[in-house]
Amino acid sequence: MARYLVKPDPHNPKLTSPVTGQDETGTQIEASVVVERPLTLYLNDQEIVTLMTVGDHPGYLGAGYLLNQNMLTGAADITGIDYDEDLEVVVVRTDKKTNHEAKLERRTLTSGCAQGTVFGDMMERFETIELPRDAQIKTSWLQSLSRTITQTPSLYLAAGAIHGCVLCEADEPLIYMEDVGRHNAVDKISGYMALENITAAGKILYTTGRLTSEMVIKTVQMEIPILVSRSGFTAWGVELARQADLTLIGRAKGKRFIALAGAHRIEYDGQNDQD
Amino acid sequence: MARYLVKPDPHNPKLTSPVTGQDETGTQIEASVVVERPLTLYLNDQEIVTLMTVGDHPGYLGAGYLLNQNMLTGAADITGIDYDEDLEVVVVRTDKKTNHEAKLERRTLTSGCAQGTVFGDMMERFETIELPRDAQIKTSWLQSLSRTITQTPSLYLAAGAIHGCVLCEADEPLIYMEDVGRHNAVDKISGYMALENITAAGKILYTTGRLTSEMVIKTVQMEIPILVSRSGFTAWGVELARQADLTLIGRAKGKRFIALAGAHRIEYDGQNDQD
Repeated sequence: MARYLVKPDPHNPKLTSPVTGQDETGTQIEASVVVERPLTLYLNDQEIVTLMTVGDHPGYLGAGYLLNQNMLTGAADITGIDYDEDLEVVVVRTDKKTNHEAKLERRTLTSGCAQGTVFGDMMERFETIELPRDAQIKTSWLQSLSRTITQTPSLYLAAGAIHGCVLCEADEPLIYMEDVGRHNAVDKISGYMALENITAAGKILYTTGRLTSEMVIKTVQMEIPILVSRSGFTAWGVELARQADLTLIGRAKGKRFIALAGAHRIEYDGQNDQD
Repeated sequence: MARYLVKPDPHNPKLTSPVTGQDETGTQIEASVVVERPLTLYLNDQEIVTLMTVGDHPGYLGAGYLLNQNMLTGAADITGIDYDEDLEVVVVRTDKKTNHEAKLERRTLTSGCAQGTVFGDMMERFETIELPRDAQIKTSWLQSLSRTITQTPSLYLAAGAIHGCVLCEADEPLIYMEDVGRHNAVDKISGYMALENITAAGKILYTTGRLTSEMVIKTVQMEIPILVSRSGFTAWGVELARQADLTLIGRAKGKRFIALAGAHRIEYDGQNDQD
């Protein structure tokens, strides 16, 4: 098995709950279902959002959310993270007032919801990022990654109904996060990378979810040059990936896949040893 | 094939776009990917939200969104629906100012985002709904529905990366909607039911997506007593289904399934003729 820095903990009793039900024959059975709980995120004394999450890695989730929303520019901004399990609150602290807080204040004066501004900020940064052209992915790595990841014990295998994201290097998965919330898994990876000093340059991001515009935007913002999914594409996701020169590989199952952007980073080393 | 009132139209050229890419051997291929486009929804002259959608059935989507958010109480409120394809705008019109618009105005005075109020309203209605206890689902219907739905030509089969929702009666699928947006497919069904006078009492809602709290809340609000998915459960989804006495059936594949709420509506008629 791979040398993960972080991997799923399907035996953690806080992440699933046992529920009694009936199967197709009417027999009483006990099923394991994924927990979802609210986590309210503060940036200093400003309440930002309440996320629905499976509940592990709240610090990485909070930091990663703020980084991926461009409310923080990097881990250097962060002076502390406090998590209160009973209150279901995580507070990310910075030394000085952030750009975002200043903007939110202005925005509140004109009333209404700040979501529009935030999205505008995201795209502004997206357009400035240059992904490394010399990063590479071999087709043999892809096969090996798919196999290792799907065989790793996970909440998905134990209880289903959860998304997974894995940061990989060559044919090795490094950070495997899962969450019920659509983008929480990738935000946790972002938080982990920033706080534990993991660089993005040669990495590959693998996701179980669809290759939507939001997924492409987050990957580019994290400066990861290659995004892989076992699931499919949306047209806007493909368009943004081409704009940013992100390598976008979907429908990756067994030895099969389709690349719809940045295929210049793929090395076809023709290892076809499975399926 | 079933007598659908509405079914997917995978050959509609507006819903997918052809994209050139490379497969696992490096051969150039043409793939079909699902389109996502913005649709801005107005309730009279109040801008409500911009949804990302595949783009079919904008009128049903707009009406269904407003109904499922409790911004409208029923189709009787609606005096007209205008859709402008070039502007990507749909306007739902009512005779008199709705309850929601009055609330939004008050809310704007106190500043901030109205999302909290809206969610509060949703739960208020959820708690008052009594689903019919005498509705029924036979295990033989479940098998037959799963088979018919998965064999129906769809955008999912043609291009992947899309959610599907199907309103069914006994073993017959009636309204099959698909969308890239997580809840748009179910909102389109809600709009269709309201505008075309389809009653909810004996119906079954089938979804390809997970049985989350939001999916359970929408089904209950639509007063549909039975919700089925080929995918899995979350703990909060199960809890809310039990609270509302919704029949919640998940992991439905071939003849297998698990029921985690409202199993009293299931008749085990033991037809095991497939898989």
